Amino acid sequence: MSSIDRRQMLKLSSAASLAVAVSTSTAHGLSAQTSTNPEMVPQWEVFEIALPGPSAGNPFVDVQLGARFSLGHRSVEVEGFYDGAGKYKIRFMPDSLGNWAYTTTSNAPELAGKSGAFTCTAAQRGAHGPVQVRNTHHFAYADGTPFFPFGTTCYAWIHQSEELQRETIESLRIGPFNKIRMCIFPKSYEYNHNEPALYPFERDASGKSDFTRPNPAFFAHVEQRVADLRALGIEADLIVFHPYDRWGYSSMPAEADDRYLRYVLARMSAYRNIWWSLANEWDLMRAKSAQDFDRFFRIVEQHDPAGHLRSVHYSHTMYDYSRPWVTHASLQTAAFDSAPTWLTAWNKPICFDEVQYEGNLNSRWGNLSGQEMMRRFWLGVIAGCYVTHGETYLDPNAAMDENTTPVIWWSHGGKLHGISPARIGFLRGLVESTARDQGKDATRTGFTAQNPAYYLNASTVNASDRATQEVLYFLDYHQPIYYEFPLPDGTYTAELIDPWEMKTVPLSGTFSGKSKIRLSGTPFQAVRFRRT
Amino acid sequence: MSSIDRRQMLKLSSAASLAVAVSTSTAHGLSAQTSTNPEMVPQWEVFEIALPGPSAGNPFVDVQLGARFSLGHRSVEVEGFYDGAGKYKIRFMPDSLGNWAYTTTSNAPELAGKSGAFTCTAAQRGAHGPVQVRNTHHFAYADGTPFFPFGTTCYAWIHQSEELQRETIESLRIGPFNKIRMCIFPKSYEYNHNEPALYPFERDASGKSDFTRPNPAFFAHVEQRVADLRALGIEADLIVFHPYDRWGYSSMPAEADDRYLRYVLARMSAYRNIWWSLANEWDLMRAKSAQDFDRFFRIVEQHDPAGHLRSVHYSHTMYDYSRPWVTHASLQTAAFDSAPTWLTAWNKPICFDEVQYEGNLNSRWGNLSGQEMMRRFWLGVIAGCYVTHGETYLDPNAAMDENTTPVIWWSHGGKLHGISPARIGFLRGLVESTARDQGKDATRTGFTAQNPAYYLNASTVNASDRATQEVLYFLDYHQPIYYEFPLPDGTYTAELIDPWEMKTVPLSGTFSGKSKIRLSGTPFQAVRFRRT
Repeated sequence: MSSIDRRQMLKLSSAASLAVAVSTSTAHGLSAQTSTNPEMVPQWEVFEIALPGPSAGNPFVDVQLGARFSLGHRSVEVEGFYDGAGKYKIRFMPDSLGNWAYTTTSNAPELAGKSGAFTCTAAQRGAHGPVQVRNTHHFAYADGTPFFPFGTTCYAWIHQSEELQRETIESLRIGPFNKIRMCIFPKSYEYNHNEPALYPFERDASGKSDFTRPNPAFFAHVEQRVADLRALGIEADLIVFHPYDRWGYSSMPAEADDRYLRYVLARMSAYRNIWWSLANEWDLMRAKSAQDFDRFFRIVEQHDPAGHLRSVHYSHTMYDYSRPWVTHASLQTAAFDSAPTWLTAWNKPICFDEVQYEGNLNSRWGNLSGQEMMRRFWLGVIAGCYVTHGETYLDPNAAMDENTTPVIWWSHGGKLHGISPARIGFLRGLVESTARDQGKDATRTGFTAQNPAYYLNASTVNASDRATQEVLYFLDYHQPIYYEFPLPDGTYTAELIDPWEMKTVPLSGTFSGKSKIRLSGTPFQAVRFRRT
Repeated sequence: MSSIDRRQMLKLSSAASLAVAVSTSTAHGLSAQTSTNPEMVPQWEVFEIALPGPSAGNPFVDVQLGARFSLGHRSVEVEGFYDGAGKYKIRFMPDSLGNWAYTTTSNAPELAGKSGAFTCTAAQRGAHGPVQVRNTHHFAYADGTPFFPFGTTCYAWIHQSEELQRETIESLRIGPFNKIRMCIFPKSYEYNHNEPALYPFERDASGKSDFTRPNPAFFAHVEQRVADLRALGIEADLIVFHPYDRWGYSSMPAEADDRYLRYVLARMSAYRNIWWSLANEWDLMRAKSAQDFDRFFRIVEQHDPAGHLRSVHYSHTMYDYSRPWVTHASLQTAAFDSAPTWLTAWNKPICFDEVQYEGNLNSRWGNLSGQEMMRRFWLGVIAGCYVTHGETYLDPNAAMDENTTPVIWWSHGGKLHGISPARIGFLRGLVESTARDQGKDATRTGFTAQNPAYYLNASTVNASDRATQEVLYFLDYHQPIYYEFPLPDGTYTAELIDPWEMKTVPLSGTFSGKSKIRLSGTPFQAVRFRRT
């Protein structure tokens, strides 16, 4: 935290009334806000302090509020926020078990010097903490459980009708995805012409926004959806800025950008299932430069006490993912062949977050066949990276008009219609079964055998002692009737995998060295070898 | 012709007996050697002088023979060759109508100073002359008829059993291909372990070759197969050297290489349907350098009076296709995205001669799905280039053993089993129908519309006045249900094309500007617009 920030959180010592709340979640239902004044907060849930305070002037700008949470000799400084109607809140996600104490700070006397305590208890079932980078190119929850992103994309789903949002949640509940890319701001684009029910800032009668006055109801709604996802075990990859805009949110002054960003951080950092995507297609935001995003990254570093993952997505011009404040790359490309170069250069995980969408739109990025989408997932995972799904199906009889607002998963959510999600779920199952067997320190590394006769996409999964535990070959559009698979030292069992039919057939016997195996002679097959 | 070559063809004046022959062909049957002493030779057929001469010593090395053919003030110098058993031949393909005269030259008195004459008459039906470069990036026969290479690959088909060679010829007769890549030398490689019936050089009892003594029967057989292809209207892309060898042909001394090359040129340049491919995978020939191929190119330039097309094929390291003696690029890659760069850099036609093979082999290059092969043809043609087919299907129950010698089209010929040839024929039909409509000066240029919403593979066919006559879009794995196609100025009719189902559906009405068209919503579709 910078010295400026510290100065803003003047310590005062008033002892006004105090309410605290904790939001809990389960892995199987939607979250609910629960008791005030809790003495017990499970690890990685939200501890919330609610305080009454000044409502005169513009509290969003005038009032600074924070708290210092302490556990033994460790302390964490957290920013609070104005929630409208004279209410102030401070949220904190305890990451360690034990007895925490806190004291508030504020430039408003009635908000400062409030103290209290709570006990952080064992995490609830299904709560593993925020996702972090683990083993350089991979991810894990804070408790060490490996996390393999199999994400999807619904940019503006939280700005649709309540009924449609419920449908989206149900689709996510029964679907194969564990991450979703979603915008905070509403979206204005082809097929996205509806007004949102809530706006992020107060507006006057003419529709002009007052960027100094966030709309607490808007942000409470975003939080509710993030909590809903948390209850489903789904990471919310929150897109903070984006260029698809007719309301002015993409071209606010720098001080308004920064204030908005800090408001979001104060409200939402305590949700364990958040990733920060500072923009979608940052390079299409004409009012912003790479330097603006450098600044945003530093603000997030300083004001997110949970240290959530941080990246930014581009259209044509990459942000420099080697910068130290970027935790992982968020790519718009299907150049999986470049993965080895990029992994080595950046030393970070890579999410191929936009590889185009399965669908039938009149735009090149929105009309991949389901087969091609499945193929891209396999190529990305085999390369030791991660891939994000998106779907853009129009009704085949839809009007040929981009000015309509049909329900398309990519933006609006709703139902999934594609043929790739089931295959993506099958691949996720394979990857997770490896992790269960190999332990949390296992890492997947893509490679290509150098012998031209064996030039196939493959990856190895190595245990923490670097011994190869698994070799997974993906044959892409190749369709041999037999193949001689080179194997590292050791003895392996083998399975034939049909990624399209989603079937696995174990082979009898064991294999070592160069292993000839008879195959189906059809394209898009895979073979997995696992050390005995 | 160099001064050294001129010195070798000493003019002598003996008047020995003389026989000439002309081989004729039709577009619909196999060729036949016909009458001696013809007075009439159709344009682009083979006029052949046969002379008895010395058989003592080593005539292949000792005797130089040539002839000067004259038409009016024009003369062409041609090398003859020793055909064994005291027989010498000089072959000439007249490229111009009229009364030709000739006189032989030799360092053997009985071969020198023979004179004669013949009349070159109108070309036979289906004979259009040798293929040449036309309009920078394209090809045409000498008579101006456009030639669009849709080739296939049967490296060693002429070294299989007579029955199998007949089967190959029949497959070619009914198939979609108009060019074949084939080796002069026999082949030793995976699945290629048989001995040829004929060897290119004399061998002693131990199998050791005498590279100073070509085997005339071997070369007569090659010529017969080239003549058979000529009768089918198929170009023979003759591979002069290659690395798949256990007999020593890939590592002869330089003087033996050069003598062999000149023997081939003397025997075969008069066949109009020849292209010279100086090597397959030149960079895998460990005994050869790029400088050796520079020299081979210059020898071909000097000793092929017909000026047939010249290129060389690589495995990993490209030969420098910008060199002036290379007429076109012969690539082993499927990097169609690089086509615009290469076309601009080289200013020559590009044949993607090895884009891997449709099949089911245990080698990455030999197991493409038929869908992927079809896709590669479309991507290459759309890019304004040409693509060559190959097929490598094993019986699904074949032994898992590369030491067997099954019949595989890629090497042995036989029957075609794949699903891509019919689709390749369909594409050839589309391309040729455009040529029929647009005339011989029409050129196809690949482009990619720059508007991201329209970023699709496409090509235009422009008439000689550069006006766009046709726009062909290929949608690859994209599957929109409608699409807005940008069109150049003008009014166009449109057809929906299904490259896989091989169906064309004309749309009613005409189109101009940005034209929205409803599509099938399935992958691998195309749309063709033609100027009204």
